[in-house]
Amino acid sequence: MPTPDITTLTADLRVLGGQRVWSLMISLFGDLAQGEHDGIDGPVLSTIMAALEVKPEAARVALHRLRNDGWITSAKTGRISRHSLTPKGRALSAAASPRIYTRPDEGPQDWQLVLLENTDLEAQTSLIAAGFKQITPRVFVGPTTPPLPKGALAMPGQPAPAWLQDQVGPRELAKDYANLHITLTTLAGALPDPQMLNALDTAVLRCLIVHNWRRLVLKHPLPPRALISDTAGFHLCHLIVADLLARFARPALATIAQEQATL
Amino acid sequence: MPTPDITTLTADLRVLGGQRVWSLMISLFGDLAQGEHDGIDGPVLSTIMAALEVKPEAARVALHRLRNDGWITSAKTGRISRHSLTPKGRALSAAASPRIYTRPDEGPQDWQLVLLENTDLEAQTSLIAAGFKQITPRVFVGPTTPPLPKGALAMPGQPAPAWLQDQVGPRELAKDYANLHITLTTLAGALPDPQMLNALDTAVLRCLIVHNWRRLVLKHPLPPRALISDTAGFHLCHLIVADLLARFARPALATIAQEQATL
Repeated sequence: MPTPDITTLTADLRVLGGQRVWSLMISLFGDLAQGEHDGIDGPVLSTIMAALEVKPEAARVALHRLRNDGWITSAKTGRISRHSLTPKGRALSAAASPRIYTRPDEGPQDWQLVLLENTDLEAQTSLIAAGFKQITPRVFVGPTTPPLPKGALAMPGQPAPAWLQDQVGPRELAKDYANLHITLTTLAGALPDPQMLNALDTAVLRCLIVHNWRRLVLKHPLPPRALISDTAGFHLCHLIVADLLARFARPALATIAQEQATL
Repeated sequence: MPTPDITTLTADLRVLGGQRVWSLMISLFGDLAQGEHDGIDGPVLSTIMAALEVKPEAARVALHRLRNDGWITSAKTGRISRHSLTPKGRALSAAASPRIYTRPDEGPQDWQLVLLENTDLEAQTSLIAAGFKQITPRVFVGPTTPPLPKGALAMPGQPAPAWLQDQVGPRELAKDYANLHITLTTLAGALPDPQMLNALDTAVLRCLIVHNWRRLVLKHPLPPRALISDTAGFHLCHLIVADLLARFARPALATIAQEQATL
């Protein structure tokens, strides 16, 4: 039985959105090569980008842009270039990783409501930065752990009505999550057992999952579990993403290189 | 030692505000003659109104108005008219009495915050009718006992910061309460022992206290005790009002009539 065609299986994920190549490349480096001594050799990167259906010229332009922006650095050993995240790129990837890779059951559990004395901008900004969601003027809901602005009144969360879960969730992304959910459900049903995929295909699959997930989840905080409806689109996506990333484990870069050498 | 001059002692209370005679008369009937079979004989009413420094013509006009408005009914027995609250007047007085006569320690103790799903007018109105105060859109604080609008989220009250106590209290009446507090403090310091006042003077004193208190407290709900600062003006007034009304006990109408007969 031949290796399943990952290009066909992931076609929907490739067209769903977020098709900027430089952004896709950040997803790739963040997933495969975030470690301090990680780097992707030029031939391996070319192979992966080709498998992602990115034309060589587009990949070159993206790499150039990421170097100019200080995300990626390239070093030559003989005729082979090796591309790595810069310290800045690694720090930005690391900052985003918890939000991308946290499993649905690993996030904050309990919630609290915070009432501010007034509409002080600094206090509001600090709460939003701490993962809170504004519900109405002066009122925020979020996790129980962050330090609160001075004078803020905290009210421990009670069993949340469905309307509050709906208001806390990213309603503006509801359609995007619904589309991603359909795509991931179809994909999950069609994927072969993980051992049937080689390292390159697994890397491609993970990159597209991470990329589509990343461009949505980084737009809003993960609400405490008590504020998430079991049927919320972003939660359903989260369950599938976490399951797929766990089952299709991150391949070693060396394994991808070896596979190419043996072709 | 002569009976202290209650007219002089209460001069500040008479000029503080709420000088509409018909309203003063409602305060009087509500305090002295709210019982189902209570009535004030014409001569006694005239004596009390005179002691309140209301001119006979003004008292007649006010009585006429209250009869026209269905608050008071008058019945003649021989040459003597007897004035009573109508069932409507008695019901309105009875409805206001808890707010006027409740002692500072008798009101609701604990508080809760209620978050509404949206700015539904009916839900907001029902909360305000139940003694809640709106703090910001969709957010109300008040006692823990009233039934809540369907779907409302209740959060049990936490130790309240001073700014919340300030926002819950009737800030728009702060100046009125401050003035009343000064007047009542001066009055309380100058009043003789209760047994030194005859029934008429006691009735006049109580009427003016109730009247000045009534015109402020009926404009806002009594917040739960946990939301009242010990130094809030309305609370300081409440303490003095409750103390004076307890010490200068309500005289029987018959006693006032007997005093007049023995003059």
